[in-house]
Amino acid sequence: MSERESTESLADLGEFAVIDRLVADREQPPAVELGPGDDAAVLRAPDGRTVVTTDMLVEGRHFRLDWSSPGDVGRKAIAANAADIEAMGAVPTAFVVAFGAPEDTAAADAVALSDGMWAEARTVAAGVAGGDLVSAPQWVISVTALGDLQGREPVTLDGAQPGDTVAVAGELGRSAAGYAVLLSGVDGFDDLRRRHLVPRPPYGQGRAAATAGATSMTDVSDGLIADLGHIATASGVGIDLSWQALRPDRDALAAVADALRTDPWAWVLAGGEDHPLVATFPGPLPDGWRAIGRVLDGPPRVLLEGEQWHGDTGWRSY
Amino acid sequence: MSERESTESLADLGEFAVIDRLVADREQPPAVELGPGDDAAVLRAPDGRTVVTTDMLVEGRHFRLDWSSPGDVGRKAIAANAADIEAMGAVPTAFVVAFGAPEDTAAADAVALSDGMWAEARTVAAGVAGGDLVSAPQWVISVTALGDLQGREPVTLDGAQPGDTVAVAGELGRSAAGYAVLLSGVDGFDDLRRRHLVPRPPYGQGRAAATAGATSMTDVSDGLIADLGHIATASGVGIDLSWQALRPDRDALAAVADALRTDPWAWVLAGGEDHPLVATFPGPLPDGWRAIGRVLDGPPRVLLEGEQWHGDTGWRSY
Repeated sequence: MSERESTESLADLGEFAVIDRLVADREQPPAVELGPGDDAAVLRAPDGRTVVTTDMLVEGRHFRLDWSSPGDVGRKAIAANAADIEAMGAVPTAFVVAFGAPEDTAAADAVALSDGMWAEARTVAAGVAGGDLVSAPQWVISVTALGDLQGREPVTLDGAQPGDTVAVAGELGRSAAGYAVLLSGVDGFDDLRRRHLVPRPPYGQGRAAATAGATSMTDVSDGLIADLGHIATASGVGIDLSWQALRPDRDALAAVADALRTDPWAWVLAGGEDHPLVATFPGPLPDGWRAIGRVLDGPPRVLLEGEQWHGDTGWRSY
Repeated sequence: MSERESTESLADLGEFAVIDRLVADREQPPAVELGPGDDAAVLRAPDGRTVVTTDMLVEGRHFRLDWSSPGDVGRKAIAANAADIEAMGAVPTAFVVAFGAPEDTAAADAVALSDGMWAEARTVAAGVAGGDLVSAPQWVISVTALGDLQGREPVTLDGAQPGDTVAVAGELGRSAAGYAVLLSGVDGFDDLRRRHLVPRPPYGQGRAAATAGATSMTDVSDGLIADLGHIATASGVGIDLSWQALRPDRDALAAVADALRTDPWAWVLAGGEDHPLVATFPGPLPDGWRAIGRVLDGPPRVLLEGEQWHGDTGWRSY
């Protein structure tokens, strides 16, 4: 990048020049028949359906630019939406992005945001097919993800059956622990800091769960108990979790919990934003999934070995 | 609505209770196989493709809550995105919406916003299939529209051919004139004020143009000359407009221009946000379209009877 480019603002360049720079040299995946530059994009939907979800990230609420690089923010915005597509048993095919930012934002930061989005989208063989760029008092990033069910039925929240195994793919509590480290000012635990700034959803496991006959699925964005609560409510079932089965997640966070003098179970049970997948299975679990509990008859509730957990139950947008 | 409901804020109710209220009693169109409430929505894409576009509206930049009711903002956000779907020759099937607002926003205002979105979506037989609700310092609304090409090829920006007729469906300059009235404090001209707050795209004319063989098309969101400039550049052609053909739009705004002591041509030629459609046709125009000029050999430029126009050429996001 030239020195001139690195100091130019969005206002210096103007909307269309910035957009040209954001979309230059991006190779679209086969699912994108028509990419950015027209009134709308055209995407393939081979099985005659499209899965769609949207999330908005607001500076100061969902990320801090003194913690996250623009590239981190881009990766996180894509990952959070991709996880929702996975949670339906689908695979992400493309993303469209609306980006609001102050006029004095460095164009290089917008390019870095876009690079982060593309890097994350590439990990699921998808692309950024279109977007909008507007002036706003702070950064606001709204991502819409589209996905392909590849002929499978969507795995919804309401299909869990008593007797099913509750299982998770991916790790719990890392993002919440990393957030606590960042807030605390304690040194070290760099991997956990990264896990807060850029979550690592277990890409591909949504499709694997659907293929293995998962009866319900969601991603853990609000916290394990909160998100399993959505399955419990929608399915009209109880869910009983095993302390023992969750112990590896707790143990992985024991050192940082000691350093911060706090209880790692709160991160495991109520920490959001890691975006692992949780699902219920009537039969054997696919590779990459581990059992953490089972589905009971109603009423809808989430228990830990028969008892209610009395900590916080999850992140709230309000 | 109960008195209690009318005074409750988003923070009082919490995200999930507000969302429950926003999605209650909404009848989804047939294109929506699975609507709000799960990790993602599932939409039909009968011809194996999906058209997708996104726009972000920011309070203070794209709308003012002292001018627009929440319902107006909802209608405008849907209309702007629906027009982009029309401009591809497609029909809108569904919208997903991310809404950021301060925690003390009245829940009733969020419901009114959603009602406005649904009212506008209904005019194109579509629905709001999903969304996100987050805390933000000001209102931010990001809408993604999805559309169905119904087996037609998309009408892009780059197909205009010398000799084609340039035509418009819908009216020019009304939104810009209404904006000038609102800014001026002058009384009257209520219809124009409304046209600024809630644009009226010529729904159905995108499909009509595609069926009639339009070679290029866009909607006028930035201004007639600016948006035709995108067609001229993408197609590598010149465009020559007729003063006479545009005269009815100018004459419709003569009275308000007199009242504000300004030139109505600037509204007609450079006013955005009305979202009429402009397209190029090699043959006869479909009903609802009127000729305003013709396509010339390059270089890419937009002229008025052979001359460059020297006013502002359109709205800029930066």
